[in-house]
Amino acid sequence: MFLRGLLESGYEGEIYPVNPKATEISGLKSYPNVKDIPGPVDHVISLIPAHLTPQLIEDCGAKGVKTVHLFTAGFSESGEEEGARLEAELADIGRRVGVRVLGPNCMGIHCPKARLAFNIGFTRESKESGTIGFISQSGGHAVTAAEVGPVRGLRFSKIISYGNACDLDETELLEYLTHDPDTEVIAAYLEGVKDGPRFQRVLREAAQAKPVIVFKGGRTEAGTRAVSSHTGALAGSETIWDSLLKQAGVIRVYTLDELIDLLVAFSYMPPIRARNVGVIGVGGGASVEAADVCESAGLRVPLLPLEIRREIREFTPLAGSSVRNPVDTLEIWSPEAFSRTIELVAGWEGIDFLIIHLAVETNINRPEGRALLDAMIDSIITMRGRTGKPIAVVLRSSGIRLGLEVLCDVQQRCLEAGLPVFSSVDRAALAVSRFIQYHEGCLSARSA
Amino acid sequence: MFLRGLLESGYEGEIYPVNPKATEISGLKSYPNVKDIPGPVDHVISLIPAHLTPQLIEDCGAKGVKTVHLFTAGFSESGEEEGARLEAELADIGRRVGVRVLGPNCMGIHCPKARLAFNIGFTRESKESGTIGFISQSGGHAVTAAEVGPVRGLRFSKIISYGNACDLDETELLEYLTHDPDTEVIAAYLEGVKDGPRFQRVLREAAQAKPVIVFKGGRTEAGTRAVSSHTGALAGSETIWDSLLKQAGVIRVYTLDELIDLLVAFSYMPPIRARNVGVIGVGGGASVEAADVCESAGLRVPLLPLEIRREIREFTPLAGSSVRNPVDTLEIWSPEAFSRTIELVAGWEGIDFLIIHLAVETNINRPEGRALLDAMIDSIITMRGRTGKPIAVVLRSSGIRLGLEVLCDVQQRCLEAGLPVFSSVDRAALAVSRFIQYHEGCLSARSA
Repeated sequence: MFLRGLLESGYEGEIYPVNPKATEISGLKSYPNVKDIPGPVDHVISLIPAHLTPQLIEDCGAKGVKTVHLFTAGFSESGEEEGARLEAELADIGRRVGVRVLGPNCMGIHCPKARLAFNIGFTRESKESGTIGFISQSGGHAVTAAEVGPVRGLRFSKIISYGNACDLDETELLEYLTHDPDTEVIAAYLEGVKDGPRFQRVLREAAQAKPVIVFKGGRTEAGTRAVSSHTGALAGSETIWDSLLKQAGVIRVYTLDELIDLLVAFSYMPPIRARNVGVIGVGGGASVEAADVCESAGLRVPLLPLEIRREIREFTPLAGSSVRNPVDTLEIWSPEAFSRTIELVAGWEGIDFLIIHLAVETNINRPEGRALLDAMIDSIITMRGRTGKPIAVVLRSSGIRLGLEVLCDVQQRCLEAGLPVFSSVDRAALAVSRFIQYHEGCLSARSA
Repeated sequence: MFLRGLLESGYEGEIYPVNPKATEISGLKSYPNVKDIPGPVDHVISLIPAHLTPQLIEDCGAKGVKTVHLFTAGFSESGEEEGARLEAELADIGRRVGVRVLGPNCMGIHCPKARLAFNIGFTRESKESGTIGFISQSGGHAVTAAEVGPVRGLRFSKIISYGNACDLDETELLEYLTHDPDTEVIAAYLEGVKDGPRFQRVLREAAQAKPVIVFKGGRTEAGTRAVSSHTGALAGSETIWDSLLKQAGVIRVYTLDELIDLLVAFSYMPPIRARNVGVIGVGGGASVEAADVCESAGLRVPLLPLEIRREIREFTPLAGSSVRNPVDTLEIWSPEAFSRTIELVAGWEGIDFLIIHLAVETNINRPEGRALLDAMIDSIITMRGRTGKPIAVVLRSSGIRLGLEVLCDVQQRCLEAGLPVFSSVDRAALAVSRFIQYHEGCLSARSA
């Protein structure tokens, strides 16, 4: 899997397979031991059984290898004494022979710029470099982020899965991303930390330099137990974590979906100065729901001033519509009226940003339906440029196959135009609310 | 739209278009006025302008029409005095001439059994009759439920969109569904009620007869304002609503997605006696997240007893897995090991039901990947039968086109086998937790 991943991504350095029984693997000459490799070796990826890894680290030390990534599992996370003993030994040997160890029990490094991919089957987009650095104690979350992220328009500088953290840990990796010029936003999935005070200091420094988003796994009894059998980490008290993250100025999320939503906001939205949202879409019930979930997420949905309502009314029939905010209007199907509606709502100084919610399946069965949908996106793009107000787009589908296909296309068009896309108003509202929370933190830090 | 909807669904009664200017519409003879129709008329659907509707009700009275559904909008929801006056007039005339009025400002009646559809382009599944009765003050939510519900495997007895409720209101419709033999579960989207005490009594009776799920729109300041411009309703105090619904034994949801998720649980799960869930899937981080969201949703994720863990360990490698619950194992790709894992977890008396989470894209690029995924579903179906424990399936996709296609297929297979499908563990956990809340309410009511 790792070898094919490297070959598929077009890694440009030398690749040396090592296997005591093979002479050739995937067309590359194979060596019985790292020490037999002719040239210098920077990094080793280990998939050998756990009990053989101490000798590997010794050999890597002898060879002058800088880092060893142990995909190998079966250490402290197993709950067995032998596993914990082996893991401690790895770190000790590494320190003695001058080799840094990543893992064990992890996926290692995904770095598009270096054409280093930790998995096969990644899309072209997954291999494109970006500005999000993600460290993850979970290999699965690292892979999911590398797969789901690009579909949502995210691009990563580095994704580092570090598992049991016997040597290189969350704190050192965080420190690295803080100073990494390719990384502008830091995301972290953490299950535990080993040196609390040091972590706290480094986290604060990181959050002062860049936006830091933390998804902490293990906040319930069962989650804490799952953490210990996943990476052998001590999840720690929920109260301590909560205040630690707040004090550091870190934004906290509670699921991987929430993390990805928030990264979409950071990747596609300019700073938003306050919490007043203008909501535009079709449907009275949908508008009521949008208003409720926005305010529940901590946003404000202010009533539009009378003069703006009057202006919208000039081209919006009274029946079956509302122009108070949320604006509920079928006129979104008329490109001119839709553009003008966006312009009027976004043009009001009382609005800081817009959420526009669209059901991709309306008119899907009409031949002109798709063209109308494209015209809507054009209107949004044009009006965002003209008004300068950030816009979050919500694309909804009933889940029928044709609808999902249209959704994929339209989402792609939005992303290419730099528009963030979410799957529901509540997910958009939550992400943008946290995004604003970050900028509020910066403002209050500056004024303090 | 309505005429085409009726023709598409194959409505078997007589359909008479009425239009003062036409002699034929969609191949049917058209009449200048309802009074000119030769045969008896049960139900009239009105799309005429608001100011003409009082005369329509008069004419319907003269003709002996039983009910008039007013799609026509522009009444009290407009915020204009004239609209409110007209709406009151409609109700008065209806009472005087013996015609019941549904609406105004609504989509009316969707009743698959009577082949009455309120929209065009519905799928075959949308037109199949089922046991869910849904009354909705929002026409949009009614249409969305009719579209999204069937994709998720829901079938409706009736969907009734009732808008401004000038005559037939939520209370009377609720009373109707309570006694409707075709309806086994009642869902309601409400924005306000006009007669609180009467509603409270009827709601309690309904909840004693059948499960009742209420999605109340307008729980925030902006939501309340949106309600008044949507259906002219008074949203009422959030505190009063909350205690009213609790006292009546009604389950409350906060978004349309949550409503649909809960209806999936009611449609596809047998009663669940307690809150202990066994979680099976792939991924350490995913398992930690699953444990956290399950417990946050009010479920319990108990540690499996040592003897069951030992039995699972017999065929599950130590490295990269956990057998404590959540069970995190790559062995789900081996049909035999996966079946045995389900059997062992579900077989323990400490487990009341299972959540199994699958990423549809793993192995998607391998030729045998799809067959393996099908084999997994087969294992789940067989083991559900053998152990008798309810199982909720979570199907996840990264959102790439091929993945979404596989998701559609696999979801369809699950639904055909009677397995409920959710899009994330947190949505599944929340829905099942509320589903159990209903059964707990029944148990405590019985013991009281």
